[in-house]
Amino acid sequence: MSAPTREDLARLDAADPLAALRDAFDLPAGVIYLDGNSLGALPRATAARVADVVTRQWGEGLIRSWNTNGWIEAPMRVGAKIAPLIGAAPHEVVVADSTSVNLFKLVAGALTVRPGRATILTERGNFPTDLYMLQGIEALFRGAVRLKAVAADDLPAAIDADVAAVVLTHVHYKSARRWPMGAITRLAHGRGALTVWDLSHSAGALAVDLNGAGADLAVGCGYKYLNGGPGAPAFAFVAERHQAALRSPLSGWMGHAEPFAFSDAYVAAPGIRRQLCGTPAILGLAALEAGVDLFAKVDMTALEAKALALGDRFIDLVEARCGFAGMRLASPREAAARGSHVAFAHRQAYAIMQALIARGVIGDFRAPDLLRFGFAPLYLRFVDVWDAVTIMREVLESRDYEHERFGAFSAVT
Amino acid sequence: MSAPTREDLARLDAADPLAALRDAFDLPAGVIYLDGNSLGALPRATAARVADVVTRQWGEGLIRSWNTNGWIEAPMRVGAKIAPLIGAAPHEVVVADSTSVNLFKLVAGALTVRPGRATILTERGNFPTDLYMLQGIEALFRGAVRLKAVAADDLPAAIDADVAAVVLTHVHYKSARRWPMGAITRLAHGRGALTVWDLSHSAGALAVDLNGAGADLAVGCGYKYLNGGPGAPAFAFVAERHQAALRSPLSGWMGHAEPFAFSDAYVAAPGIRRQLCGTPAILGLAALEAGVDLFAKVDMTALEAKALALGDRFIDLVEARCGFAGMRLASPREAAARGSHVAFAHRQAYAIMQALIARGVIGDFRAPDLLRFGFAPLYLRFVDVWDAVTIMREVLESRDYEHERFGAFSAVT
Repeated sequence: MSAPTREDLARLDAADPLAALRDAFDLPAGVIYLDGNSLGALPRATAARVADVVTRQWGEGLIRSWNTNGWIEAPMRVGAKIAPLIGAAPHEVVVADSTSVNLFKLVAGALTVRPGRATILTERGNFPTDLYMLQGIEALFRGAVRLKAVAADDLPAAIDADVAAVVLTHVHYKSARRWPMGAITRLAHGRGALTVWDLSHSAGALAVDLNGAGADLAVGCGYKYLNGGPGAPAFAFVAERHQAALRSPLSGWMGHAEPFAFSDAYVAAPGIRRQLCGTPAILGLAALEAGVDLFAKVDMTALEAKALALGDRFIDLVEARCGFAGMRLASPREAAARGSHVAFAHRQAYAIMQALIARGVIGDFRAPDLLRFGFAPLYLRFVDVWDAVTIMREVLESRDYEHERFGAFSAVT
Repeated sequence: MSAPTREDLARLDAADPLAALRDAFDLPAGVIYLDGNSLGALPRATAARVADVVTRQWGEGLIRSWNTNGWIEAPMRVGAKIAPLIGAAPHEVVVADSTSVNLFKLVAGALTVRPGRATILTERGNFPTDLYMLQGIEALFRGAVRLKAVAADDLPAAIDADVAAVVLTHVHYKSARRWPMGAITRLAHGRGALTVWDLSHSAGALAVDLNGAGADLAVGCGYKYLNGGPGAPAFAFVAERHQAALRSPLSGWMGHAEPFAFSDAYVAAPGIRRQLCGTPAILGLAALEAGVDLFAKVDMTALEAKALALGDRFIDLVEARCGFAGMRLASPREAAARGSHVAFAHRQAYAIMQALIARGVIGDFRAPDLLRFGFAPLYLRFVDVWDAVTIMREVLESRDYEHERFGAFSAVT
């Protein structure tokens, strides 16, 4: 495909059925924000929602708001709102803790429902906290559990009869390579293993279909494409068929069948609620709910199509207009194999990203040599892609970045 | 002691060096809030702090705020501010996750630094989530760890050579009975065990002195006396001498020595930071910091004295003015053995508490027969004690409560 013009892109915006959603966000002037895959932008509704929770619900309602303002049900309520975005039933998703903590719960849970199997299988180069949590589980069980991390290409063949759980990030945080969820799940099931999907880089951008894929368990992040704010609580999915068997190892009081009976013995709540642990983070939940509410009328198939189209145009334009500077695509070219971000490799990636950020194009650097650009389809326009590439071309032509020093990392995925 | 008059109490308020702190809180009109031990009141500064984080830091700063607005350091910064309230050094406390999750981390950590010991010892009737989390650890280790829960009176003798950790709540959530932290810790150390203290019902009300007591590990709640808001993040204390040995079983990326190197292998951060797991909850941390900042100039010894004096006056007045109705003290009478709340038992406790709440005196019911009243010393006045007891007397005299139905529990500890 030949590279589009700015006019071509403006026409795509004019025809975009999702274009009006951009108005639901408060985006700072002078910024093209290509980092919504790291921290989503602020929805306009959020400030008032959070202020209401602080001033009216907490300040005036005090302890009574656990009931009168629906705090106690918030983890299930917001989970049910996330469910349609990821192909889950409302009673299969709950909001709690962090992605890391939820991964611990579900993988430890998977081990107990696959007794006799001792291997957790994952991909080498998976998102670090996923690897670290799995290493923590391996250390905790002192020899009774083995973590096997293999190269992506070797993963299908590595699902053997000792594997209890295949733990993968649906869309890779660096390359954006997308695992075929249905095919891997079928393969895992054929060998008696469960699948645990980390949806951090796909929920809210792609038309994830957990139940369509037959997935068993999943976790995901609230502060990326769901726009829940910095450190937003995360979500956990447990397919209905596993809910009765999967007891959380973090068996806190909010997962108890009767939390306010204050009995001495833990009895797991029925259903997804047993995946709760401590008292829910109400401020974080309120902000996350405001973010998730923006998806209420969004057709996820159309959203995914836009996300991938933004990425396609970006790839075409970078190659056509910045190819001279040695930018090398480090993501799958084929949209169907990609998530909602695009990575390019360059020997001076860090310095180039610093120069881009200084000019208002905010992406990420990922060591050792990647520039990562996220295309949050709820609020980005096609012309933003053009303008970002224009600024990238200016940076590369001016060679300003060659004077940048290699400093501390400045972003959080 | 004979019961004081309202004038006696007004004189105590006039002489109270902490009285001005009440103005730092936004308390609703018509309410006497005796439930700050369940959910602390709203500090006046909090709404603006949280709004700044949402609108300026997140909305405008976006991903850059992890560095430019100090988000990444917030767990350590707020931990260091909590430290002086609990007798810890600034580098011994971090804010993260929930109390339940932190308890899991520290107890599992304690087991690894006491190899060869398989018993976790706790008190029967301890706060439910503490018991449930310990039961979860026992289940997780499938026979390699044994949870022993004994009556409080039997606990000292039960610390034997197999005990790895003695896990106790410093101030009991129902009775307010206070464990002698120094004596129990000396006993535990003499038998080779560590102590893990849950400070949820003491931090921010009593002059807790972890290092003075020689304590090893502790956790505590951000939403009670620290006034951090509903579901505020919790804190964890690890004495400096244990920090290098105590690796968290929840080894998420924020506890890694170099989180932004994105390496595949977990390497625990030095010091307290390794107790972090996932991405910090920035909205919750901002609200908690506003609450904790109110303690900056507070003499904790004076604060504890006020807390206990409020409780003493309440006990005297209830017994003198409401004794006719069969209210029975269910907390230690001696202030030194008590925390900052007071429980009374009554056969119709639930109905009486509902009637009190309907008249603006907000306390808690705890099954089966307790009325629990918390005396948050930062914002309660001595005359509030008088007025609350006056309303209680009216309720008891009118016997209105006898018409109340026993409904759903309405409070969260």
